[in-house]
Amino acid sequence: MDRFTVTYHVTGQEDEIAKRALGIALEQTIELPANLATPGFVADEVVGQILSTEALGGDVWEVKISYHPDAAGGELTQLLNVIFGNSSIQSGIRLASFELTEAMMAQFKGPRFGVAGLRELVGVPEKPLIQTALKPMGTDAKGLAELAYKFALGGVDVIKDDHGLANQVWAPFEERVEACVAAVNKANAETGGKTVYAPNVSGDFTAVMQWAKFAKQAGAGALLLCPGLTGFDAMRTIADDDSIALPIIAHPSLLGGNVTSQASGFSHRVLFGQIARLCGADSSVYPNYGGRFGFSKQECLSIVDGCLSAWGHLKTVFPTPGGGMTLDRVEDMQATYGNEVMYLIGGGLYGLTDDLVKSTRIFREALGR
Amino acid sequence: MDRFTVTYHVTGQEDEIAKRALGIALEQTIELPANLATPGFVADEVVGQILSTEALGGDVWEVKISYHPDAAGGELTQLLNVIFGNSSIQSGIRLASFELTEAMMAQFKGPRFGVAGLRELVGVPEKPLIQTALKPMGTDAKGLAELAYKFALGGVDVIKDDHGLANQVWAPFEERVEACVAAVNKANAETGGKTVYAPNVSGDFTAVMQWAKFAKQAGAGALLLCPGLTGFDAMRTIADDDSIALPIIAHPSLLGGNVTSQASGFSHRVLFGQIARLCGADSSVYPNYGGRFGFSKQECLSIVDGCLSAWGHLKTVFPTPGGGMTLDRVEDMQATYGNEVMYLIGGGLYGLTDDLVKSTRIFREALGR
Repeated sequence: MDRFTVTYHVTGQEDEIAKRALGIALEQTIELPANLATPGFVADEVVGQILSTEALGGDVWEVKISYHPDAAGGELTQLLNVIFGNSSIQSGIRLASFELTEAMMAQFKGPRFGVAGLRELVGVPEKPLIQTALKPMGTDAKGLAELAYKFALGGVDVIKDDHGLANQVWAPFEERVEACVAAVNKANAETGGKTVYAPNVSGDFTAVMQWAKFAKQAGAGALLLCPGLTGFDAMRTIADDDSIALPIIAHPSLLGGNVTSQASGFSHRVLFGQIARLCGADSSVYPNYGGRFGFSKQECLSIVDGCLSAWGHLKTVFPTPGGGMTLDRVEDMQATYGNEVMYLIGGGLYGLTDDLVKSTRIFREALGR
Repeated sequence: MDRFTVTYHVTGQEDEIAKRALGIALEQTIELPANLATPGFVADEVVGQILSTEALGGDVWEVKISYHPDAAGGELTQLLNVIFGNSSIQSGIRLASFELTEAMMAQFKGPRFGVAGLRELVGVPEKPLIQTALKPMGTDAKGLAELAYKFALGGVDVIKDDHGLANQVWAPFEERVEACVAAVNKANAETGGKTVYAPNVSGDFTAVMQWAKFAKQAGAGALLLCPGLTGFDAMRTIADDDSIALPIIAHPSLLGGNVTSQASGFSHRVLFGQIARLCGADSSVYPNYGGRFGFSKQECLSIVDGCLSAWGHLKTVFPTPGGGMTLDRVEDMQATYGNEVMYLIGGGLYGLTDDLVKSTRIFREALGR
């Protein structure tokens, strides 16, 4: 029986690492001391098996543990539970990455569009894509639609709702979606462009699927989802739904506390790369280095790796750095990211000139578009 | 218009705190620099308002910010988004607590049973309650039911599935629930006891509500839910569902990365106290101090405060410490927690004697039951 493998980075002294590794193998499976494991199948196969323990330098150790595929029960939710459920609560254990068996990979469709599909959808075969956000919160649906119209005229590829736009009285979800779809369609008709609008469908448990279906029927070209708000499997479910079949923009809202400790929580790569991809994101939004968030360049590049490196049959995902994306940073960003990237430029467009069409065109040109 | 208030702990130097506080007020609302806020309603009311900035000692500052209630859009998901969405990604910003307006509080039912309701359900008016978990993963439904029978005979109040039991082939959900319900009913009939069984319903997005309803129909007495796996609003939705109407045991799986950094993420009190309570938990499981997890006694007592202190119309919730709960710790735990507590004793029962009925009775006696 093939087993799946999870890599943890454990902070501790050399003489305690074997015990810590065993602790994870037990915690993530039987949640009992080793001497209480039922002899036979449970002790031999269900308990996690320590594959390797390697010094990474400092007090950090790479611990690889394999698990029985049936422990994940054929479900995304339970897979995440086995990978990191209780160990997420331990200080000094960081989830670095994971690799599934072929049979497990076959259970996941992953991104429906991916990099190639999104490029085709918006008609940009090679260069970086541009994403922006409709804001500020408090603007009415008509005002947001006017912004969408201007961004589309200027040539933004993906116009998303700011992730803070939900179903507020000042711009109710359905009214906003209809107004913004119409505005983007109008601009596309005028320019011959293929801009898509991605409404935020991160509603309550019973609303999220309804909103996604409404957005589809209203003609939205993509969807914005915050898995930290809705749960990861809501995103996978919507991504997999053939009656919706829209690209998914994944936003990191409320997930950040998981990556702010270097020694605990999730690695940037696994959370915004692997997990986003496994859950069907076509674009994974994360805070760019050098902006108002604290991610390092190396952390951002690890996310790029999680989005773009080969991983079974799963399509690649657009790394989508955002936050503090000003024009003067384009050269540096291009040197870092190359062409396989979607830039989320929000404030950078609003603040550049007092004409959003012009601001967008300036950014497009700077990106060689 | 009454506004709701969020308290953050910000780590930084005195001369930058005003700027950091403004940064949060903007980030959580309009996500634009202050000079780009639309004059009038947006700038005056939608942007967060800094109420106070107070030194807490060291480099930590308490920053209180108020928000327009309509920013939360009448939804739990969007409320959490406004409270901490993007700021969760910032290093050095910790969500300490929040207080809602009366009108917002009225939107939330909170715990359906609470401490008093759970006590009545299991027939224990005063003393601490005992919760245990069925394990290890890999045991078949019949084996788990035998364990449940013994725990119920011994007088455990709430027998939950280990949070790693989902729908694995070796103990499929429906078969397990039916077997364990029957076992607990049999024991109750023999003892006159009121033990309840709480199956884990933390399934995939489309499964979680189906599993909860199946559990209800099968006669389960409570439900186990991991909001870190299902999303917070799945828990609220199930807690609020009158056709289910069962106590909810909230488990911290996959949420831990949010609390492992002292300077960022969520405070223990807000995550395992306030948010669990707002989402309808009747029992909030968290790792006890002194066990194999790293929570301090003070952090655990802050969770107790979030569970038990007065908070509008919301019922109180059982703080439910677990992890490394051995018999020799009972005296110390009792001194810490008093009577208003449910102890989650797993390995401590499995490891005490080779007779689970006897082990349970020993623990009951130690707790004065």
